[in-house]
Amino acid sequence: MGALLDEDRLFPIEPRARALARRLYGLVRDLPIVSPHGHTDPRWFARDEPFADPAELLVMPDHYVLRMLASQGVRLDDLGIARLSGERRETDRRKIWRCFAEHYHLFRATPSRLWLDHTFETLFAMTEPLGPQTADVYFDRIGEQLSDADFRPRRLFERFNIEVLATTESALDDLAWHDQIAASGWGGRVITTYRPDSVTDPDFEGFCANLRRFGDVTGSDTQDWSGYLEAHRRRRAFFRAAGATATDHGHPSADTADLSPDEAAALYALVAGGRADAGHKKLFRAQMLTEMARMSVEDGMVMQIHAGAHRNHSPSIHRLFGRDKGFDMPARASYVDALKPMLDAVGLEPGLSVIVFTLDETAYARELAPLAGAYPCLKLGPPWWFYDSVEGMLRHRRATIETAGFYNTAGFNDDTRALPSIPARHDVARRVDCAFLSELVLTGRLREDEAAELAEDLAVNLARAAYRL
Amino acid sequence: MGALLDEDRLFPIEPRARALARRLYGLVRDLPIVSPHGHTDPRWFARDEPFADPAELLVMPDHYVLRMLASQGVRLDDLGIARLSGERRETDRRKIWRCFAEHYHLFRATPSRLWLDHTFETLFAMTEPLGPQTADVYFDRIGEQLSDADFRPRRLFERFNIEVLATTESALDDLAWHDQIAASGWGGRVITTYRPDSVTDPDFEGFCANLRRFGDVTGSDTQDWSGYLEAHRRRRAFFRAAGATATDHGHPSADTADLSPDEAAALYALVAGGRADAGHKKLFRAQMLTEMARMSVEDGMVMQIHAGAHRNHSPSIHRLFGRDKGFDMPARASYVDALKPMLDAVGLEPGLSVIVFTLDETAYARELAPLAGAYPCLKLGPPWWFYDSVEGMLRHRRATIETAGFYNTAGFNDDTRALPSIPARHDVARRVDCAFLSELVLTGRLREDEAAELAEDLAVNLARAAYRL
Amino acid sequence: MGALLDEDRLFPIEPRARALARRLYGLVRDLPIVSPHGHTDPRWFARDEPFADPAELLVMPDHYVLRMLASQGVRLDDLGIARLSGERRETDRRKIWRCFAEHYHLFRATPSRLWLDHTFETLFAMTEPLGPQTADVYFDRIGEQLSDADFRPRRLFERFNIEVLATTESALDDLAWHDQIAASGWGGRVITTYRPDSVTDPDFEGFCANLRRFGDVTGSDTQDWSGYLEAHRRRRAFFRAAGATATDHGHPSADTADLSPDEAAALYALVAGGRADAGHKKLFRAQMLTEMARMSVEDGMVMQIHAGAHRNHSPSIHRLFGRDKGFDMPARASYVDALKPMLDAVGLEPGLSVIVFTLDETAYARELAPLAGAYPCLKLGPPWWFYDSVEGMLRHRRATIETAGFYNTAGFNDDTRALPSIPARHDVARRVDCAFLSELVLTGRLREDEAAELAEDLAVNLARAAYRL
Repeated sequence: MGALLDEDRLFPIEPRARALARRLYGLVRDLPIVSPHGHTDPRWFARDEPFADPAELLVMPDHYVLRMLASQGVRLDDLGIARLSGERRETDRRKIWRCFAEHYHLFRATPSRLWLDHTFETLFAMTEPLGPQTADVYFDRIGEQLSDADFRPRRLFERFNIEVLATTESALDDLAWHDQIAASGWGGRVITTYRPDSVTDPDFEGFCANLRRFGDVTGSDTQDWSGYLEAHRRRRAFFRAAGATATDHGHPSADTADLSPDEAAALYALVAGGRADAGHKKLFRAQMLTEMARMSVEDGMVMQIHAGAHRNHSPSIHRLFGRDKGFDMPARASYVDALKPMLDAVGLEPGLSVIVFTLDETAYARELAPLAGAYPCLKLGPPWWFYDSVEGMLRHRRATIETAGFYNTAGFNDDTRALPSIPARHDVARRVDCAFLSELVLTGRLREDEAAELAEDLAVNLARAAYRL
Repeated sequence: MGALLDEDRLFPIEPRARALARRLYGLVRDLPIVSPHGHTDPRWFARDEPFADPAELLVMPDHYVLRMLASQGVRLDDLGIARLSGERRETDRRKIWRCFAEHYHLFRATPSRLWLDHTFETLFAMTEPLGPQTADVYFDRIGEQLSDADFRPRRLFERFNIEVLATTESALDDLAWHDQIAASGWGGRVITTYRPDSVTDPDFEGFCANLRRFGDVTGSDTQDWSGYLEAHRRRRAFFRAAGATATDHGHPSADTADLSPDEAAALYALVAGGRADAGHKKLFRAQMLTEMARMSVEDGMVMQIHAGAHRNHSPSIHRLFGRDKGFDMPARASYVDALKPMLDAVGLEPGLSVIVFTLDETAYARELAPLAGAYPCLKLGPPWWFYDSVEGMLRHRRATIETAGFYNTAGFNDDTRALPSIPARHDVARRVDCAFLSELVLTGRLREDEAAELAEDLAVNLARAAYRL
Repeated sequence: MGALLDEDRLFPIEPRARALARRLYGLVRDLPIVSPHGHTDPRWFARDEPFADPAELLVMPDHYVLRMLASQGVRLDDLGIARLSGERRETDRRKIWRCFAEHYHLFRATPSRLWLDHTFETLFAMTEPLGPQTADVYFDRIGEQLSDADFRPRRLFERFNIEVLATTESALDDLAWHDQIAASGWGGRVITTYRPDSVTDPDFEGFCANLRRFGDVTGSDTQDWSGYLEAHRRRRAFFRAAGATATDHGHPSADTADLSPDEAAALYALVAGGRADAGHKKLFRAQMLTEMARMSVEDGMVMQIHAGAHRNHSPSIHRLFGRDKGFDMPARASYVDALKPMLDAVGLEPGLSVIVFTLDETAYARELAPLAGAYPCLKLGPPWWFYDSVEGMLRHRRATIETAGFYNTAGFNDDTRALPSIPARHDVARRVDCAFLSELVLTGRLREDEAAELAEDLAVNLARAAYRL
């Protein structure tokens, strides 16, 4: 047992089950990390500059941390978060870190605590729990290490044993950082993902301007439906050339539609012309999921649907501080009805692969597992965001595996913006899966040799296969 | 431990709890099977002919198997499934069996695997896991045994120790197979169930023609509301004479209505005349649930409501291969509001018994357990279809028993189309219940003598009582 | 082990986990009871008269008991429940008790059984399980003890080690019993809670008359919007003077609204004038939640929202016997959307505290934990009503703590009408929490010193803090 981490953490408590889980975990602990979906910054690996200080690395960019502190009355201003006006009311990083340390008990039994303690112990060799008394020791020791070459982004990537890391870029991104990584001669495999929300969601900020820019960067006339579709085709090819194997779609719902080409063209005219009402916008997003699926049939890109976030729930926070500050909420979601138009159109196409994520756990057993357990194109993504946690993972497994089987799931995604959390998150997933498998074996639902095979499949093989990596 | 089955399977892992579960299971393992709801074919017991081969017995009719193979790209054509056109593209049964065996790992940790391994080991004495290497051994050994007299339907019924088996027939069925069984002198109790969907659901194929035939077979004028109701009364009596104690209603939702007789007659005129819109059809189904409940008050038949399946989700599959090919999905369901009109009408009638099933587990704790824990007419059915599984059963128990108690539940239903799966399914249910009871005892929520009584109640007594068998 | 209670009840089965749970429970078992929300009768403590007999104490007022007996065909008439007409068809209390005893097996594995056995053993020293054979022994022995001075309400309050007990009174209540308690010189802290549903819910019986009476008791002109708001302010102050620290709102949904003052005044005119339709009434309730939140910002009263009960589901029961007879049902509920208008208005106000309860468990992980884990004003209430049970508590913890953390929860509420159940309910909550904490420690998610601190926080400190006691 380390200072912060129990070496048997997350394994079953019963000794025989614990021993088996430990055995299974031994098979996967040192496998490389396959990270097919996330939001780390490619600039880190392009520039390879050191991270500044503990607060900037671990507190300020982590919306899980911000939301929990805010929930107990800490103001974002006090955490050094910049206002949209540019103003930053707190610049003393040590003070920010102390505030975090004083509130660290709030994270008890949350996944943030597991991830952070993992980082503290395994990356920074801290030996005492974080708290008001140890805040300064932490700040100093971590800060010191961050200036060391061993803590630069590329070196961390290597130390973390990352086999492949996918970032996510807007369709309008020039992928310059990825180019720079490729040109650098460094061997790390950092690939991009095609995220076209800014040009498929008419509610996205600057949508009409985005369409014009989309035309510019692709050389296709995006004032017209077929030109617009052609722009997507070209841009998808551009992303594939930079290593992308997948697209990602962050829609407020999983609604799909399958309009006739004429109807779709007419709808696009309204939307592109800025004359669409809420119903048109919703329908356009729905139509675009089906169009993206059709293009995936053509070009083989794996399609991810991350549906059902109610973003920027607090208008005050949004107005002052902008997006991704911890005030996003889950929304109810439907899939059996919502995906039907797309599935009717392309659901039985060989070669199509669509990975579905949800923030509404009631859909696991009622909708997603039955769909993924029948349609050849569908795979079930791992527990997302609020549910990327020990209990969340167990609920996901228990609710889906009996109907979808393991082989209609897509392995693990860390989906993180925080580089140091990557090994922590994969470790949690591997441990929870080994715990779950151990329980299946000891209740006679699986043989141990099958569990051993599945432990590896869940750790790396399913992700490699689902994302065609 | 047998070759395929752990003799302590599904029991708790903790040794004391396992020992208690084993003790409780010992009390119920050899009790007869009471199977009050299912879809086996009465022709089997009327004709008592041998089953053809392993693929025809275990693969081709099992929609759980078909859906999982389809989800990984196996085509129904390759599994020998006949198209509606009559065409069967694969007729080599050994080839079909090999395809199944090659994909058998897909079923890991699913209930199909538990049921199939149970059949392989206990019925066919197989000693090695099914897989590509053992596909032929399985095909040959099982095929050989199927021609043995001991594997004919009636003999299996007896070997399985079935006390009573209910099949389900359309209101238009002539119950000829049941007559033949009765006339045969064979002692097995195979009863029917009155399933009138073809004449109560205006969306059922051939509804208007069905109504005419309903008139013909009952000698009642079904062009008129009161004649139509009378036809139901007569047909229910006809089914009761063939042993039926229950009716079954497979509606897309649990909506009920309680129109005045004049309103109902007017609605029926629209529906029977083929002039009903979607709203009328929905309302008619809703009204018919209340009418069926009223007739149950009169004639004492137990009413089952299996609400909330979205059938034939894939139009391509439906068009090519027809119904029941594994592409049915759950739908969200409501009961507190939906059942209110029926409950307001007859919910406190002594003698009425309505058993409710759901494909939406969110209704367990929020709707069904509170309703069943208050209204004397309501009983809660066992976990249905996608949830007839280890985890599904545990969720059901945990979500309902604290509010509804054990005695407002209806025992177990196997609900199967697959004869060999009957003992496997009852065995799973008995084991899971003993595991659950053992946990209650060891956490001080139940005494062991109570658990012993409950183990028997859950295995046979509650089903006998709920279905008046 | 006592006659009825296992001293290790509700602890984990695994020995090491059980030992730790027992250790943690040892720290909180004897802490005082903090009961910040419930429905006991202040008259008991004002008058301090003995309870009449076992049936009147334990059966007739307990809607959990009534519903379960009714669900198995026992009529409320047979249980001595008075009809609204005043008629009471059964007056033989021993006969009522015997009926209850004969049906006591119905409560197996329900929370009622845990609470009642706790009362039987710890309060009345019964040594055999209740059942048909022991019905009379129970009736006689409990009846005898009830006449003893040690079983009078104030003495029970003291014996139960209650630090503070909140009752709930209508805004129109004169709080005479609370005055009498205060004037009596007795030291027990019994406080009230401001429950204004009768004057905020236009569907409440006698709403318009209630508004007039509201004007009379406050001396404010309630025919006018600003006078009506002022009446609330005055009445809240009156309740605060009688010890109230909180308000409580029992709305059918958690919908909130934030109309302009002019719109609100116009809506109030419709509602107060009896000219409101269903939409107006719903909107008015929604507006009043936001108004109450605004007043809480002003006066510091903690606001409780108990949303989502479908009351009086059976019109026959309601017509004959009135409210609270066990025929209330949960309703689906939404919070992310529903609370938004209120949160937009005051959600970031320092000092505001809103505690939210639900009867729809699907909202725990999807809505309430994310909201409480971000907005500083929101706290998550304990599992309510149907979910105040072992499994209900575990589901609540597992679904919420990872996202909301422990410190955005409000501790335990017993919410009971039954005085003897208070220690039983707190004991169940403390045991379940210690079991949960023990599991967190042994799976490496928490250190034991943290678990010890949390055990106390969950038992008393969080409730004291959340309710400002």
